[in-house]
Amino acid sequence: MIEINKNYLNIKKSYLFAEVNKRSREYLEAHPDEKLLILGVGDITQPLCDSVISALHSAVDDQSKKESFHGYMPECGSDEFRTAVVSYYKKFGVNFEKNEVFVSSGALDELGDILKLFSDNNSALVPEPAYPAYVETNIISGHRVIHLPALPENGFTALPDYGIDADIIYLCSPNNPTGAAYSYDVLSKWVEYAKAKKSIIIFDAAYESFIVDRDIPHSIFELEGSRQCCIEICSLSKTAGFTGMRCGYTVIPNELVFDGISLNALWTQNRTTITNGVSYVLQKAGAAALSEEGQRQTKQAVKIYQKNAEVLTKALDECKITYYGGKNSPYIWMRCPNDMNSWDFFDFLLNKAQIVGTPGAGFGECGNYYFRLSAFGDPEDTVLAGERIKDMFK
Amino acid sequence: MIEINKNYLNIKKSYLFAEVNKRSREYLEAHPDEKLLILGVGDITQPLCDSVISALHSAVDDQSKKESFHGYMPECGSDEFRTAVVSYYKKFGVNFEKNEVFVSSGALDELGDILKLFSDNNSALVPEPAYPAYVETNIISGHRVIHLPALPENGFTALPDYGIDADIIYLCSPNNPTGAAYSYDVLSKWVEYAKAKKSIIIFDAAYESFIVDRDIPHSIFELEGSRQCCIEICSLSKTAGFTGMRCGYTVIPNELVFDGISLNALWTQNRTTITNGVSYVLQKAGAAALSEEGQRQTKQAVKIYQKNAEVLTKALDECKITYYGGKNSPYIWMRCPNDMNSWDFFDFLLNKAQIVGTPGAGFGECGNYYFRLSAFGDPEDTVLAGERIKDMFK
Repeated sequence: MIEINKNYLNIKKSYLFAEVNKRSREYLEAHPDEKLLILGVGDITQPLCDSVISALHSAVDDQSKKESFHGYMPECGSDEFRTAVVSYYKKFGVNFEKNEVFVSSGALDELGDILKLFSDNNSALVPEPAYPAYVETNIISGHRVIHLPALPENGFTALPDYGIDADIIYLCSPNNPTGAAYSYDVLSKWVEYAKAKKSIIIFDAAYESFIVDRDIPHSIFELEGSRQCCIEICSLSKTAGFTGMRCGYTVIPNELVFDGISLNALWTQNRTTITNGVSYVLQKAGAAALSEEGQRQTKQAVKIYQKNAEVLTKALDECKITYYGGKNSPYIWMRCPNDMNSWDFFDFLLNKAQIVGTPGAGFGECGNYYFRLSAFGDPEDTVLAGERIKDMFK
Repeated sequence: MIEINKNYLNIKKSYLFAEVNKRSREYLEAHPDEKLLILGVGDITQPLCDSVISALHSAVDDQSKKESFHGYMPECGSDEFRTAVVSYYKKFGVNFEKNEVFVSSGALDELGDILKLFSDNNSALVPEPAYPAYVETNIISGHRVIHLPALPENGFTALPDYGIDADIIYLCSPNNPTGAAYSYDVLSKWVEYAKAKKSIIIFDAAYESFIVDRDIPHSIFELEGSRQCCIEICSLSKTAGFTGMRCGYTVIPNELVFDGISLNALWTQNRTTITNGVSYVLQKAGAAALSEEGQRQTKQAVKIYQKNAEVLTKALDECKITYYGGKNSPYIWMRCPNDMNSWDFFDFLLNKAQIVGTPGAGFGECGNYYFRLSAFGDPEDTVLAGERIKDMFK
């Protein structure tokens, strides 16, 4: 008799963004003439850049002719894609072997898949507020989840607590949802902690292209000692507008060895055994996005989002509302005005200003009185949202 | 301290196709002037059909403009893709609700992912010879694997044994590697068994488009009672040449309920929680492949492969070599001549005729004296291979 994985029942029923969408939909049904300003879900609004578009068309043409047709891809990534990632990291002074880079179907899918490297007897440490998937993937795998509140006192960058024994540690910098960017100093404390505890840091670098300050690491592998205790999961979703494309990458250093077992070798075995890799056309698109020309072009979209962040933070400044992020990050983590809780503030903003943001409560309990604004929205909508915020709170 | 998933160590080190590729490469290095006839790995050789190519170009154009750009996709599949699958199944007289269809990144990835529905305390029954992934995905998940030899006496279609208690049952029809197509009669015995044991059949229908006999089911859901005990995993790799594209689908009926838990609801939760769905461009391509016009066009490639199968089976007939499959299937499962074992026969064919096939031993112990020929090769190469087989064994 089959035994169902009942861990799913431990996941909170109403998923954050589903609830946000539901309330937005209901508002529009009741007010069919209104237009919502969407600063909620972290989806992007700018199209793919020309380099990526022409790489895609050319890859599709390859698939139309017998001479250039590509079947099964190398499961860990095409040589071209892996080489493109290695070159990309050189900008940060980080050097990899090609075999340390793995193509993925994007960061979220990879966060779930990567847990197959570990037994189910591990604990996961999640500094909160956090992207819900860190918690949920671990619940599904039956891991014990340790919630570590990241406090406003240290700018929402959590610090390690040696009283806690954690096996898998999630760090996301620049952070979703708080926008907090972890400094070298704080990250090196985490690397030390991971080495002391013989645990592994899963570093989510999905928002690294928003970093402007020179002292904020783009990659955990800029830190000394990180190759013995870190895995980096990265995305092209926000860097290059790939939310609807699905191609990212993961770095597992050759030095990541526990009990004499190389996690790079294990992941290679995982990929070559139970996947057929990522689409030829998507890897071509990913390599184009990471090329010099692709990078010049994708920076244009990033600049538009950075400008959006500036519009929103200026509005909050004028209203004297406390917030974090917005610099080095597409997310602004604001304190809800008048001690409103985050779902009340969500309803308030929706009803009074037709602005859709994301309630902090969806990112963990310590987010109850905070609210996330995203800079990925349409620029005109963002300007309008800034005006409305000023009208209400200045 | 992190605990690594040591189940990987229980997987046989040398993966079948890796070893096939290694020996082929070594042969070519020693004989640089020879050309190999590749009838080994199940990759396809015909390009994508026009309908799919134009859907891809048009989807790429959508991604180039702000007005038509698509970001995050619905995680379980776009409405268009799910509708296309529902329509496709109507040909077999099988009716689904749209919510019962899930888009996937292809059958192999899905075979691993789907195990997240079940606890790790399950056993998996694999009729062998079998596609190695059934065994390996279950080893990685720590499941007990029960090997059930499918014997030549019943044409390599295994029959259930009520003395065995199995929780997850793998059936692949038309079968990889044996080419055996399961009849209604045999499949209904399996559905009865699964219902009696309260177990679940994972039905791999990747090769259904090769079925020509009218009495062979294309889908397990043609069987009465199957909606209470079956999941169907399907691929567009062989139907529409998607090996390098990565888009398939999985059907989980609403009636699949255990302990009051709906597996359809659980999988919906899995997908919406830990994936961001499948690429917009790939789902557009998949829907085009499943359309009426796409089906007419993809049938042309299937016909080329069916012709290849005919060439090979005729050669074996003339040589009076025993084989299975080749009809209703792109695979031919031949008895190795002169009681050679399968790796010896691999080396023999490689060295004497420059033909690369797949040793039966790679599909389980009972395949030791069998050999798989694939009809997915180049038609000219296949004709040449047929000639060489006749020259050697007639």
